[in-house]
Amino acid sequence: MRRKFSPNAGNPSWHVKASQPVNYEVRLCHRVFDLRRTDLLEAGGPGDGRARRFVVVDEAVDRAYGAELRQYLDHHDVTHEIMVVQSGEVRKEVDMVLRLVERLDTFGIDRRREPIIVVGGGVLMDIVGLAASLYRRGTPFVRVPTTLIGLVDAGVGVKTGVNFNGHKNQLGTYAAAELTLLDRSFLSTLSRRHISNGLAEILKVGLIKDEALFGLLERHGRLVLDENFQGLSPEGDGAATAILERAISGMLEELEPNLWEETLERSMDYGHTFSPSVEMLGLPSMLHGEAVCLDMALSTALACGRGLMNEDECGRVFAVMSDLGLPTWSPLHTPEVLGRALHATVRRRDGQQRLPLPVGIGKTLFVNDVRTGELASAIALQREMALRGSLEAA
Amino acid sequence: MRRKFSPNAGNPSWHVKASQPVNYEVRLCHRVFDLRRTDLLEAGGPGDGRARRFVVVDEAVDRAYGAELRQYLDHHDVTHEIMVVQSGEVRKEVDMVLRLVERLDTFGIDRRREPIIVVGGGVLMDIVGLAASLYRRGTPFVRVPTTLIGLVDAGVGVKTGVNFNGHKNQLGTYAAAELTLLDRSFLSTLSRRHISNGLAEILKVGLIKDEALFGLLERHGRLVLDENFQGLSPEGDGAATAILERAISGMLEELEPNLWEETLERSMDYGHTFSPSVEMLGLPSMLHGEAVCLDMALSTALACGRGLMNEDECGRVFAVMSDLGLPTWSPLHTPEVLGRALHATVRRRDGQQRLPLPVGIGKTLFVNDVRTGELASAIALQREMALRGSLEAA
Repeated sequence: MRRKFSPNAGNPSWHVKASQPVNYEVRLCHRVFDLRRTDLLEAGGPGDGRARRFVVVDEAVDRAYGAELRQYLDHHDVTHEIMVVQSGEVRKEVDMVLRLVERLDTFGIDRRREPIIVVGGGVLMDIVGLAASLYRRGTPFVRVPTTLIGLVDAGVGVKTGVNFNGHKNQLGTYAAAELTLLDRSFLSTLSRRHISNGLAEILKVGLIKDEALFGLLERHGRLVLDENFQGLSPEGDGAATAILERAISGMLEELEPNLWEETLERSMDYGHTFSPSVEMLGLPSMLHGEAVCLDMALSTALACGRGLMNEDECGRVFAVMSDLGLPTWSPLHTPEVLGRALHATVRRRDGQQRLPLPVGIGKTLFVNDVRTGELASAIALQREMALRGSLEAA
Repeated sequence: MRRKFSPNAGNPSWHVKASQPVNYEVRLCHRVFDLRRTDLLEAGGPGDGRARRFVVVDEAVDRAYGAELRQYLDHHDVTHEIMVVQSGEVRKEVDMVLRLVERLDTFGIDRRREPIIVVGGGVLMDIVGLAASLYRRGTPFVRVPTTLIGLVDAGVGVKTGVNFNGHKNQLGTYAAAELTLLDRSFLSTLSRRHISNGLAEILKVGLIKDEALFGLLERHGRLVLDENFQGLSPEGDGAATAILERAISGMLEELEPNLWEETLERSMDYGHTFSPSVEMLGLPSMLHGEAVCLDMALSTALACGRGLMNEDECGRVFAVMSDLGLPTWSPLHTPEVLGRALHATVRRRDGQQRLPLPVGIGKTLFVNDVRTGELASAIALQREMALRGSLEAA
């Protein structure tokens, strides 16, 4: 056996070094509950006896797709328990995690062959992901996001979590779902506002790294919103496919080298510097993507003030935000609120702002020197741009 | 940017591959609260301002070492909060984890510079480790085990956890403490029974892989037990040092290549096949090491029955167990209880027994074919050997 542990001179000590490989798949997939499809049951495999699956869905999903899901599982001869989480109860709290684990434990699964399946929005995926990662120190799970933000954001990463003590995602783990199936047909029943919510994260990818994606949103954003990404017209179909694929590729390219967030300068944090505080203040009425968009609008104004973007580019960004049905201004954007928000983020980012600002469209740089005066001017500019946009739209 | 994601022909999909490095140190260290030592504060570092630390101790530790700890922190100018967990409350349940996180959150720490410190036994270390791994998806922590089983077992690995729904460590994570300081001076106040408890895990290492360690226990086991590992005599001092160093080296050699327990055939599972069920049945009076020793005695009898050990070796093993103050027989060892225990373990080990049996002293092999009849014979032999041992001792 290799002797890897070299006690040093003074205090004998051992240095343990290991490396945990993480592999997961994100797959686009049309109509997962189609009886001919086996994607949903591929992970894990059947084992010796009859396959068993513990499935968690939220109430809205159960109402719209519950019958189809049950038929699918029966057709494939899968013994199952479907835990329906009442929508009013999808509070992102630790007691939900415990209730879930309790039901799971009572049902019993063969952890190596019977991954937990979650079908629902980002909040439910985060809760189930946390439960799965804790249950017996890690139980595989498969995710089927049913919201747009779930498809392009929560569903492609490895973060799980619940809120605690008034802080967003204060308790959580990094745990990759073995497989995530992205099925845009679920979006057909999603409200327009929730489509917009997801478009905010897609727009982020365009702004930080993919000018072509921004161009797609500029030309077809309104149409895919009108069509709920269902491809009701040939133009809308092509655009929906291209937008989703570019957004997911872009997200994963940024995530993969930094899955555990060791790097604090993350361009994916664009739109996520001021928004955590604003979103908590805006709850329950404000959606995540709305808070992110407000933050992106502010950062655009900051970039404009520094000459990193010209006024034309700035105007195009605000116009696309409006096209996508997203807010560009909120009365919560006061110098006091945003100053405190920045302060809280600086603490999380190890004492530096590390604020990603857009450079034109499709690039970013990081700054550490935004002061109160500049913030106030940017807020004023954001408000003016938002007002101008709404006047033009009227 | 590297394009790593190759959408396949049918369903476009992305395969994410990453690798999380894990590094941690386990250091022998004499008198961690000595004012001249800085080991306890090394991890994390002071940061810009005054250092701050959140420290968790159990009541017994606080009684015996609380004054020393406070003096140490004051001497090093560390702003601190010491959370004392009442001994009666060190239940390994999830509500303890939440209470701890709440206190931690109120105190507030700079996660990059102010690792949580836990000073206590294995149960408290497991609870604090879980809380630390969940808090903001992972907060560094430093462990100072104060029991022998903590020093040689819980304190060298990466498992955290709490019991749930009547199952041992049903919820948990793999999370390495940045630094673990092993200070045998804490053992001076430990009861004899808890020294024996830790000696069971040390004996395990000797039996599965280190004949020389077994020899040390055979010659000096009783003495180090009598001296609480404090080295009160020259012979006892040398033996205590050698036994601890060999046991920790052996543990880490086995752990390092399999930190996340992907391999199901683990020689470190020796003594841990039947004992989880027996220990749960024996609670609250049975200690972990006692259940492990009973399991090792049974496995020794199984090995003897198969001719993997001769009768002399078998006798020596039982004699050392008695020397170390450990039980070799329990009325809980019935064919029914142990049959069910084996069945439960087979489920955890993916359908196979993967039962490590000793081959002579210092080697193991794995078997998958223990049947009811053989188990009953081994139980009878274990009982006979235990009885013979106690008659000889009398």
